[in-house]
Amino acid sequence: MSHAPSLALSRRQQIVRESLASNALDALVITSLPNILYLTNFTGSSAIVVLTAEQLFFITDFRYLTVLSEACGTPHECPGMEVVTVEGSYDTTLAEQLALRRWRRIGFEAAHLTVDRYRWLTATLAAKGPKDAELVGTERVVERARVRKDPYEIATLREAARRLSIVASAVPADVRRGVAERDVALAIDRRVRQAGFERPAFETIVASGPHAALPHARPGERTITEGDLVVLDFGGVYDSYCVDLTRTVSVGPAAQRAREVYAAVREARDRAIDAVAPGRSRFEIDAAARETLGRHGLAEAFGHGTGHGLGLEVHEDPRISKRRADVDTDDEYVESGMVFTIEPGAYLPGWGGVRIEDDVLVTDNGVEVLTDVTTELIEI
Amino acid sequence: MSHAPSLALSRRQQIVRESLASNALDALVITSLPNILYLTNFTGSSAIVVLTAEQLFFITDFRYLTVLSEACGTPHECPGMEVVTVEGSYDTTLAEQLALRRWRRIGFEAAHLTVDRYRWLTATLAAKGPKDAELVGTERVVERARVRKDPYEIATLREAARRLSIVASAVPADVRRGVAERDVALAIDRRVRQAGFERPAFETIVASGPHAALPHARPGERTITEGDLVVLDFGGVYDSYCVDLTRTVSVGPAAQRAREVYAAVREARDRAIDAVAPGRSRFEIDAAARETLGRHGLAEAFGHGTGHGLGLEVHEDPRISKRRADVDTDDEYVESGMVFTIEPGAYLPGWGGVRIEDDVLVTDNGVEVLTDVTTELIEI
Repeated sequence: MSHAPSLALSRRQQIVRESLASNALDALVITSLPNILYLTNFTGSSAIVVLTAEQLFFITDFRYLTVLSEACGTPHECPGMEVVTVEGSYDTTLAEQLALRRWRRIGFEAAHLTVDRYRWLTATLAAKGPKDAELVGTERVVERARVRKDPYEIATLREAARRLSIVASAVPADVRRGVAERDVALAIDRRVRQAGFERPAFETIVASGPHAALPHARPGERTITEGDLVVLDFGGVYDSYCVDLTRTVSVGPAAQRAREVYAAVREARDRAIDAVAPGRSRFEIDAAARETLGRHGLAEAFGHGTGHGLGLEVHEDPRISKRRADVDTDDEYVESGMVFTIEPGAYLPGWGGVRIEDDVLVTDNGVEVLTDVTTELIEI
Repeated sequence: MSHAPSLALSRRQQIVRESLASNALDALVITSLPNILYLTNFTGSSAIVVLTAEQLFFITDFRYLTVLSEACGTPHECPGMEVVTVEGSYDTTLAEQLALRRWRRIGFEAAHLTVDRYRWLTATLAAKGPKDAELVGTERVVERARVRKDPYEIATLREAARRLSIVASAVPADVRRGVAERDVALAIDRRVRQAGFERPAFETIVASGPHAALPHARPGERTITEGDLVVLDFGGVYDSYCVDLTRTVSVGPAAQRAREVYAAVREARDRAIDAVAPGRSRFEIDAAARETLGRHGLAEAFGHGTGHGLGLEVHEDPRISKRRADVDTDDEYVESGMVFTIEPGAYLPGWGGVRIEDDVLVTDNGVEVLTDVTTELIEI
């Protein structure tokens, strides 16, 4: 179980209930585990929640009954949780509840239910449920609540970023000539756990020399070599919240070109952070980084977005990315309480790459950089 | 990229193409990453494959173009792969291909496409595709091929199980009085990586004393204490294939009750393995374990299934589980080439638990136990 206070859980449930009401839904079936965690503190790997105006039905299996009962009476218990133990499968148990409770308009998360499960539920409900029962696809009901962090979440992410910054300060010492990328990654993972994280937030990236041109390289057998730039991208999960940080170091004195590319990426990072404030467009924040790199002739070298939201998932909204002509959006502007990465990079096939990534919080007045470690080029 | 030989990839694609033909599909859209890996050796985290009778369209983004081109000309290259680079999003790129190629009956994986993506694709195809184009849900087309391992996969799983067995022999030395469960788990993870695995196959379980009553306990701050039974469940990914092993050790001489429960679980493990042979029902294999535990008064203490398939995923078919009255099944019988775990356990709330898990291969004549490490109770 995670540790959001019960009162925070109540508020989160209330926000979702307002969506239920405005969509005239009798119930919302929640199958996304991060969404379930957000509403209940449950950190297990199997559950379905059905939220109504009055109740929260929590469907899970025997493995989790003990941890649920242990949370009762603590300051982190989930308010109003009514546990339903799985008999047969999760979906048969869900279908029985849906039929039993006689709800009519039943929302589900269209982004988190597969077509086969949807079809089976529809057929089963038609056979066993009320005649006029209906499954209604919803989009981002819980995610919309999650995108602005509440005070508990902000405190958790701030502490997580502080711990990850300490890790980042120590990590250059792990980058030694002759050591395989993979062993550097293991050393980083060890530091992440020692810093109090539950686990790395994703597979640590150690990309050296030409590998650094691959933004998502997996650490392999290549050994760190004099003259390399090495991209180090790592993250941690702290009380269920994810933070994420990248630094690029030079093995030995950096060559002129490496200094130029590094300086351009660093300037892009600074310009993007300067562009963050409540009410600013997420596309403009991206453009601040992209245009800076373009001015240095590196427009083509930056193929990914400038950032992504952080929270219970390591990639969530808001996306700090290029505006796409083919997609309408109702969530262009960033708001206070949002937490996301700023991570411009430049990748030159055959040569190598640079990425610098920090985590920022949108405040009422502007921006707070949560990660706190030098962005100067470190030569080891 | 993974390392299945090109010829194996050709055979796998051929099996899927036979399904296409028998279902009168012009194309199959494959969105499950393990299924994509199985057919192409691609180990990245984003791709969509469209397979037709003649071609294999591989939709991916710029991050993976370099690794794909590096695989060309190697013995592991994917035959017939035609790379399509994502412009905009994956789904817009897919929709453009679907409209462009004028396929009529287009299969998709109903278990691996969410309702929102399906609805968007349907609407887009209606607007841009041929008038009579149709998206047809398919079930387990690639998974059915994956369930019986080919010679390359068997060799890989055998080697992976051999390496994991060496890890298992060493692991009891990590279980020391006064050490936190979490630190034991870290020591196991280190051994797993040192044994040549890419990564642990899942979050390592170290469940001591009363925690051992929770089959999926997460290792925490509890320290190993004299008199504990400690369940150690760990796995590794080796050249993309997963293996999984559990041993339970006693801290100090085991008490009488611990010896009895351990002996019952060990007997259940032996009886279940004895029941494995081509043509045997997976429900009977489960029953062999379950009835043994029942004879020892532990029927209620064994709440999960006896085993699960291993391969590109750590939990896949076949499921060695109880027969369920509410589910029809066309895959009751195990066949040669299947690889799965046998992992009976007994969990007694407040007291603790025991689990013993090995990995087995169904051979033409019977069974081969791939993991090779003592099942005697180890007292440390």
